Amino acid sequence: MTNATIVNELRWKKFQVLNDGFVCLVDCMGDDLAVVQAARVSYGDGTKRVSDDRTLIRYLMRHRHTTPFEMAEIKFLVRVPMDCWRQWIRHRTASVNEYSTRYSVAIDSTQSTAPDEWRTQAESNRQGSGGAVPTSLGEQLSQDEHHFHVVARQVYQKRLEAGVAREQARKDLPLSTYTEAYWKIDLHNLLHFLSLRMDPHAQQEIREYSTAIGENIVKPLFPLVWEAFTDYRLGGLFLSRLETTVMQRLLARPRQGAHYSQDDFLAVQDETWRSLNRCRERDECRSKFERLGLLGPATAN
Amino acid sequence: MTNATIVNELRWKKFQVLNDGFVCLVDCMGDDLAVVQAARVSYGDGTKRVSDDRTLIRYLMRHRHTTPFEMAEIKFLVRVPMDCWRQWIRHRTASVNEYSTRYSVAIDSTQSTAPDEWRTQAESNRQGSGGAVPTSLGEQLSQDEHHFHVVARQVYQKRLEAGVAREQARKDLPLSTYTEAYWKIDLHNLLHFLSLRMDPHAQQEIREYSTAIGENIVKPLFPLVWEAFTDYRLGGLFLSRLETTVMQRLLARPRQGAHYSQDDFLAVQDETWRSLNRCRERDECRSKFERLGLLGPATAN
Amino acid sequence: MTNATIVNELRWKKFQVLNDGFVCLVDCMGDDLAVVQAARVSYGDGTKRVSDDRTLIRYLMRHRHTTPFEMAEIKFLVRVPMDCWRQWIRHRTASVNEYSTRYSVAIDSTQSTAPDEWRTQAESNRQGSGGAVPTSLGEQLSQDEHHFHVVARQVYQKRLEAGVAREQARKDLPLSTYTEAYWKIDLHNLLHFLSLRMDPHAQQEIREYSTAIGENIVKPLFPLVWEAFTDYRLGGLFLSRLETTVMQRLLARPRQGAHYSQDDFLAVQDETWRSLNRCRERDECRSKFERLGLLGPATAN
Amino acid sequence: MTNATIVNELRWKKFQVLNDGFVCLVDCMGDDLAVVQAARVSYGDGTKRVSDDRTLIRYLMRHRHTTPFEMAEIKFLVRVPMDCWRQWIRHRTASVNEYSTRYSVAIDSTQSTAPDEWRTQAESNRQGSGGAVPTSLGEQLSQDEHHFHVVARQVYQKRLEAGVAREQARKDLPLSTYTEAYWKIDLHNLLHFLSLRMDPHAQQEIREYSTAIGENIVKPLFPLVWEAFTDYRLGGLFLSRLETTVMQRLLARPRQGAHYSQDDFLAVQDETWRSLNRCRERDECRSKFERLGLLGPATAN
Repeated sequence: MTNATIVNELRWKKFQVLNDGFVCLVDCMGDDLAVVQAARVSYGDGTKRVSDDRTLIRYLMRHRHTTPFEMAEIKFLVRVPMDCWRQWIRHRTASVNEYSTRYSVAIDSTQSTAPDEWRTQAESNRQGSGGAVPTSLGEQLSQDEHHFHVVARQVYQKRLEAGVAREQARKDLPLSTYTEAYWKIDLHNLLHFLSLRMDPHAQQEIREYSTAIGENIVKPLFPLVWEAFTDYRLGGLFLSRLETTVMQRLLARPRQGAHYSQDDFLAVQDETWRSLNRCRERDECRSKFERLGLLGPATAN
Repeated sequence: MTNATIVNELRWKKFQVLNDGFVCLVDCMGDDLAVVQAARVSYGDGTKRVSDDRTLIRYLMRHRHTTPFEMAEIKFLVRVPMDCWRQWIRHRTASVNEYSTRYSVAIDSTQSTAPDEWRTQAESNRQGSGGAVPTSLGEQLSQDEHHFHVVARQVYQKRLEAGVAREQARKDLPLSTYTEAYWKIDLHNLLHFLSLRMDPHAQQEIREYSTAIGENIVKPLFPLVWEAFTDYRLGGLFLSRLETTVMQRLLARPRQGAHYSQDDFLAVQDETWRSLNRCRERDECRSKFERLGLLGPATAN
Repeated sequence: MTNATIVNELRWKKFQVLNDGFVCLVDCMGDDLAVVQAARVSYGDGTKRVSDDRTLIRYLMRHRHTTPFEMAEIKFLVRVPMDCWRQWIRHRTASVNEYSTRYSVAIDSTQSTAPDEWRTQAESNRQGSGGAVPTSLGEQLSQDEHHFHVVARQVYQKRLEAGVAREQARKDLPLSTYTEAYWKIDLHNLLHFLSLRMDPHAQQEIREYSTAIGENIVKPLFPLVWEAFTDYRLGGLFLSRLETTVMQRLLARPRQGAHYSQDDFLAVQDETWRSLNRCRERDECRSKFERLGLLGPATAN
Repeated sequence: MTNATIVNELRWKKFQVLNDGFVCLVDCMGDDLAVVQAARVSYGDGTKRVSDDRTLIRYLMRHRHTTPFEMAEIKFLVRVPMDCWRQWIRHRTASVNEYSTRYSVAIDSTQSTAPDEWRTQAESNRQGSGGAVPTSLGEQLSQDEHHFHVVARQVYQKRLEAGVAREQARKDLPLSTYTEAYWKIDLHNLLHFLSLRMDPHAQQEIREYSTAIGENIVKPLFPLVWEAFTDYRLGGLFLSRLETTVMQRLLARPRQGAHYSQDDFLAVQDETWRSLNRCRERDECRSKFERLGLLGPATAN
C-alpha cells in the first residue's frame, strides 16, 4: 500500500497561512517504504529478517543515515510574502520556479497585520519578538500599514501606466507583497528545513508556513518518518561535551531531596564559566538541566 | 608568481554600482596557475610537455572541463538593492552571509532612479526594457520615487519607535532598500553567474553588478581564464541541430554576390518552420546568419 | 494525459548493459507538462495564449532556462562495474544509495570483456580508445581476464572464511566488480549528465549506460523534452568568438565553386594561430567548417 | 594576525596515512577571524560590544549557525586507496580533481596490510570490525595479499604492453590501488565530513585520514573553531525525545546510593520498549545513561 490515495486527496488543497498565503501539495514521489527500499540496498537483504520498516526508519533517523530520506521528493505550490520568502530561499537544496514580476504584473496582495498581531522587540534576544503591543497602538499600526499598502500600489500602478518596464516599476514594492512559487525538495532536506523553521527561535511567519507543511502534508504522507522526526529531531536535546561532564560531576554528588540545588550546579560548573558574571552557555546548560528535572526550578532573582 | 599583489591592491576597494551600491574583493584563493595545477593532476605529467598554461586553460574552457575552475575561490562584499538581490540569490552554489534586519536596524539607503534612467517596457520581449521614457515624465517619476522612499522610511521608523520587533517592523520595506552580504563562490560557478548576468537579456541593474565584478576584479586576478572566458563563453555563438542543417543546405546553394538572400534562407528553412507566419526560432536563426555574414542585412519590412 | 501508463510499463524493466549490468526505472515524478506548469508560474498567464507546450519547452531548452526542468524527478536502479561507477558518481547533484560491501558480501559478478571488445589506445587522444586489438590477442586477453577474476574472488572468499571483517576483506576487489545503487536525479541534471556521458568523447562503457537511460527511459517518459534536448544539446554546434570571426572573414571572400578551399581558410585564420605549426584550436575550427559545408573535405596530407 | 604563517609552514607537508597514503595542505582561505567577520555582517555592529571572537564562534557552533563557517575554504592534496576514496567521494559538497587513469598509467602502489592489522568481523555490528585475527593467520593473509598485488599489476601491465587503451586496461585494478586528488571544501562541510568520518563507527582507514586532517591541519589553522567543534560536535551527546522523558522519570525517583539501578531504569523505560526482549534503542539509552553516571555499570549478564 502506498500513499497514492493521500496524495490525491491532498493535491492542490490549499492550507491557508497568514492573511492571504497558502501552501499546497502538487506532487509527491515515494512514501515511508521508499525510504526503506533505498536503505535495504545499502544494508543488504539481511535487514529484512531482523527489523521491520518502522524500526529501520527509526534507526536511520536516530543515527543520521540521511541518504535514504533523499529518495522521496515533494513538490509544493506556496504563496508567501517576499519578506518571508527571503528567509525561505536561503535553503539552497531545493528547486524553485517563482512568479516573475519582470514578466507579469505583481500579485495585487500584501501581507497585512491585525491590530493584535503586532509584536514587541524581545529584550533578551536581539533577533526575536516579545509579547503583543498594546491594543490601541496595534490599531494605529494596522491603519498606517493599510494606508501604506494603498500608497505603494498606487506608485507601482502609476509607473505601469506611464509605460515603465515591469522589471523597473517593481523596484519599490514592499516586502509584504505576496509571491508564488513551485518549491520542490527531497524529504531529507525538507525535514532539515522544518527542524530549523519550526524551531521556536524561527520568526513566527515562517514558523506558521513550516508548521502547515509539516503537520498537514508531511505527517499524513510519511507517518513513520514523521514519528521518527518528532522523536529524534524536534523533541530531542543535545548536551555538549562541557554539559556532559558537568552532569557527570553533578550526579556524582549526593542529592538532598527531589532535585539538585542551584548551588550544587554552580559548584560543579565548567571551570571556564566560573569567573564570568554573565555566561550564556551556563544559562543554556542550567535550563536544560531544569527541563530534565536535575535542577529544581530557578527561583526569581 | 601568484596574484597575491593584485589581491592586496584590490582588497576592500569598493567599485561603485548604481546610486549607492558597491562590490569589493575580500579574499581570493588561487590564480590562473591553480587551475592548471588541478588540471595536471587529472591529465598527468605528460601535459607539462605538450602544452603551456595558457593553451591548457583555453582547452579546458573550450571543452567545458569545468572542475579545475572550481579550484579557485573568491569572496566579495557587496551592497545591492533587495530587488536585485532576489535575482542574485537564486544562484545556489555560493556561500552567503547577509546583513540581518532581524538583528539590526535596516540600512538607511534605497536605490533611487535619476530622471533619465526610467526605461519603457520592451515591446518585443515581455521581460525586458526598451528606451528611456520622456524627460518630463522621468522627472515626475523620480520625484514620486523620492517621496515614496521618505514615506516608507517613516513607516518603518515609527514602528521601531512604537517598540515593534525589528523582524516585524521591516515587513514593508521597499525592495529598493539596500542590503549587504559576504558572497563567496568558486571560479567556475562565478563564471557561470557572469555568463548569465552579463548577458544582454539580464536586467540592467544586475548586469551592472556582474560587469563590475567581471571587469574590475576577475579579469585582473585571472587574466588567462578571463581571456578564455570571453573567447569561449561571452563571445560565442551556438547553432542548434536545426540551424546547422539549414546552414548546410544554404551553403550548398550557389551564392549570387556577397551574401545569400532572404529568399535563399526561406527556401532552405527547417520544414517545421515553413507553415508558420511567425516563428521565433526562425527569427533567431536568421539573426545568427546575419551576424555571421551569411545573409545580407534584412531590409525593413 | 500524463505519463503514468508509461511509468507503469517501464518500472522495474531491466535494460541490459555490458555483460551483466542494467538500468531500470523505479519511479518518476512529472512529465513534459510538469515542466510547462513550472515555467508558466514564472512567465505568468500570458504565456498560455501565445505558445503551446511544445513551443514553450523548446524555447526553455534553447535559451537554457533550466529551472523548470528541475521540476521533474527520476529514480533508477542501476547495476554498474565499480570502475564505471567511479565516473558516474562524480556527478554531485544526484541522490544515491549504493549496495554496501561493508554490510553485505560483495556481489559475485564482474564485468568481463569478449575477445572482440578489447580496444587499442587512441593515438591522437590520450584519453580515448582506437580500434579493436587483433582477434588472437583479444582471445588471450579475455582468457587472462577470466583467470584473474577467479583468483580475485578466491582471495576475497578466503578472507571471509578466515573471519576477516567484510569492510577489510573487500579492499582488493577488482574495479570490474558490479555494484548496485538507487540513483535519483532531477530532469535538468539528468540531461546534463546525458549530454556529457553520451558524448563520443565519453568512455564507451558509461556511454552505453547513458544511452540506455536516454533512449529507453527518458525519451518515452518526456517525448517533447527529449526532442528539444536532441535538437539543442546533442545535435548542436558551438562556435567560439574566434571561430565566429574567422567565419565572417571567410564568408566575406568570393567563393570559387562549391566550397571554400583550405587555402582560403588559412588566409583568414585567427592571427594567434598563424605562427603555430600544430594548433588544436585551428583543427577544431576546420573540422566544424567542414561539417557545415563551408570547407571542402580535407585532402589526405 | 592571520594564519598565513601557519599556512606557509603546513603547505605541501605530507602527513603519512596507511602504508603509502598522505594528506597535505595546498591552500587555505580564511582563519578563525574570517568566520567572525562573516557572522558580524549578519548580526550587525552591536555584536562587537557584547562578545569577543571566541565566544561568538562558540555561540555559532553551539546553535548550528553554519553559514559563517562556509566562509573559510581549504584545499588538500590527498593520496588514498580507491576503496577508501569510494567513501570519501560520497560527500558531494567538495570540489575534486582526481588523477586520471584514463589519461595516465595508474599509480604503481597499493594499500598493503601488515600481519597484525587484519581485523575480524564485528559480531554485534554488521558493518564494523572486531579485534585482530590471530598472528599466524595474519601472516598468511598478508602474504596472499602481496602475491595478489603482484599478479594484479602484471595483468594491468600486460594489457598496456598489448596496446590496450588505458581506460580499458584499468578495469581490473584492485580497489587497494592508490589514487591522488585535489580536494577543496569549505570549513563547515569539512567539519561535517570530519564529524562523520572521525566517528568510532566509521571504517578505520578513513578514520585515520580524517583524524590526520583534523588534528594536523584544521586544528592549527583554526584553533578557536576546532575547540568549539570538539566541545559541541565530537564530544557531545544527543538525547532523543524518548530518552529525555525516560531521564525525567528516572530523576523523579528516589536514588539509593551513587547510581540508579538497572531495575530503576527498566521501571521507567519507554512504554514502546517494554514488551521487547531485544531493543536496540533501549540499549543505546542505557549506555548513554551509564556514560553520564546516572546508571551504575551494567553487570555481566
